[in-house]
Amino acid sequence: MSKIFVDACFGKETPYTPVWMMRQAGRYLPEYMEVRAKAGNFLNLCHNPQMAAEVTLQPVDIVGVDAAIMFSDILVVPNEMGMELDFVKGEGPVFAKPIKSIEDVDALIGGEEAADKLTYVYETIKIVREKLADDKALIGFTGAPWTLATYMIEGQGTKTYSLVKKLIYTEPELMHRLLEKVTEVVKYYLEKQIEAGVDVVQIFDSWASALEKPKYMEFSWKYMKDIASHIKAKYPHIPIIMFPKGIGAYLDDIDGDFDVFGVDWGTPMAMAKEKLGDRYVLQGNMEPCRLYSKEATKECVEALAKIMKDGRHIFNLGHGILPDVPVENAKYFVSLCKEVSKRDK
Amino acid sequence: MSKIFVDACFGKETPYTPVWMMRQAGRYLPEYMEVRAKAGNFLNLCHNPQMAAEVTLQPVDIVGVDAAIMFSDILVVPNEMGMELDFVKGEGPVFAKPIKSIEDVDALIGGEEAADKLTYVYETIKIVREKLADDKALIGFTGAPWTLATYMIEGQGTKTYSLVKKLIYTEPELMHRLLEKVTEVVKYYLEKQIEAGVDVVQIFDSWASALEKPKYMEFSWKYMKDIASHIKAKYPHIPIIMFPKGIGAYLDDIDGDFDVFGVDWGTPMAMAKEKLGDRYVLQGNMEPCRLYSKEATKECVEALAKIMKDGRHIFNLGHGILPDVPVENAKYFVSLCKEVSKRDK
Repeated sequence: MSKIFVDACFGKETPYTPVWMMRQAGRYLPEYMEVRAKAGNFLNLCHNPQMAAEVTLQPVDIVGVDAAIMFSDILVVPNEMGMELDFVKGEGPVFAKPIKSIEDVDALIGGEEAADKLTYVYETIKIVREKLADDKALIGFTGAPWTLATYMIEGQGTKTYSLVKKLIYTEPELMHRLLEKVTEVVKYYLEKQIEAGVDVVQIFDSWASALEKPKYMEFSWKYMKDIASHIKAKYPHIPIIMFPKGIGAYLDDIDGDFDVFGVDWGTPMAMAKEKLGDRYVLQGNMEPCRLYSKEATKECVEALAKIMKDGRHIFNLGHGILPDVPVENAKYFVSLCKEVSKRDK
Repeated sequence: MSKIFVDACFGKETPYTPVWMMRQAGRYLPEYMEVRAKAGNFLNLCHNPQMAAEVTLQPVDIVGVDAAIMFSDILVVPNEMGMELDFVKGEGPVFAKPIKSIEDVDALIGGEEAADKLTYVYETIKIVREKLADDKALIGFTGAPWTLATYMIEGQGTKTYSLVKKLIYTEPELMHRLLEKVTEVVKYYLEKQIEAGVDVVQIFDSWASALEKPKYMEFSWKYMKDIASHIKAKYPHIPIIMFPKGIGAYLDDIDGDFDVFGVDWGTPMAMAKEKLGDRYVLQGNMEPCRLYSKEATKECVEALAKIMKDGRHIFNLGHGILPDVPVENAKYFVSLCKEVSKRDK
């Protein structure tokens, strides 16, 4: 059975423009909070395929999105490469022993060995794929090597990125060594997700905007492209979505072997269309805070539909949905995207 | 005596391209740390004109920049509008009672009355102007109304800006009321800085990138332009620098009655030149972390000089200098900017 979401990723004609939301399996859903409470903590939830599958499916049933995204966290990868990970309340993820030297990099578990440890992710995918309707897509994902490496070096969220940036400018070879090692694991990780049953993969580069353009190209985009080419060569039927957040000013240099470019809300959609629309399907990009208001949501959905009328588009937010958004407004967004794009066909 | 920095702001020929650094009066200088220790805390330092003048002058003497920027903090404005301000170690500035309602806005001290309370700033300016060499410029500044209002509503630094953004989408009239009030105070504040002796003014919109383009134009840039027009009409001999950080993807809609556009490091200089270079002098934009390495500094200064060879330029960083940068590297940056631009004349 053909999946409208997969068709749209390949730029094929679809009866309406499909829609999903980043972080759609998340805290704004009371049903999610229930499962999470049962799990005890966030990492337990990631490690428990039954529960992870349950929250993956929730937004499809409750909100009506066209694709599920497997519930997990990008940091399970460095975790299984051997870095102890903790989610500290109010602080977010923390690696107790951040990477400080070449020796630390070399001590990490690499390649297929690390990817093989992520069995709970592949299990989640199998359970979801079994329960998910045939016409809905399942999205697998990974963090981009740059975003993962930044966490591994900073040890936690950071405002200044001063540790990792100091490395970029003073010890670039250490950074590249780490990035190469993470890239190799990520390739295996995505392959195994695909083998387990995902229909699409997305690479999240959440911290793309931490780097100036020439360094972004060298330390992040290059590795993302490498991963995309590798997957595309092996699995040409699997669409690849790239989501580098906050680099709207760098679009002139964006190219590579992928299908969909995820546009964040800080990049005007008309600009993304002008620069990338002839080569890639565009995904996005409603500012998530618009979900606080139905009026603001409607204004944006109508505007996006108008801009993308003669383009290839997937509706989404321009970043993750926030925990305090009313579920009703999320439902309104999803149904409006379908309604408006059906009307305009 | 003509000031090379002021001449450059107006796009006149100068013997070399002048240079200064955002946060140049700051923690990377041991001499600054000494004065700050004497002051006891950050706000005391802002409130003490003798000490504030001393740290204002330090980078001119030590690092050799072409302009001093008065030492102060953007938050003294909301503070004197009646909001209790504290600088909490490790957390940064905190307003004990953030703005929550129209009544809170109306209770703020407004207009010239608030601006008149900032006497310590005007005193600082007078002392600096007396001691500063005639050929060096003194820069006054303010936070943009949007950035100030964001602090006033969030109460402190924020990653999500969820309080202020919820207002933008659900109670825009409250936001506009607050922004209008802040704008009026800021106009008086800049006038009084100019009367006290500053040669140039810069408007810092540090949190520009928190808003999607249409909302940025409506809730921030509109007010910045209004302030610039007001000052320009009254003091045409005073150059105005606009520094909205992180909106490289919005440059197509940038216009207004100002002289210099401050380019942050996330906006490629070649792109800024293409979009704004025929209308404005461009300031910036070396990534501050390049100061960790002389080699990385040199690479960027040479590249900027090349891009701006036939343009009008002021050297600066693309954001503030970081506390752990070696003073030697800051000196190297400043002297290199002068040397390279002299060579290229």
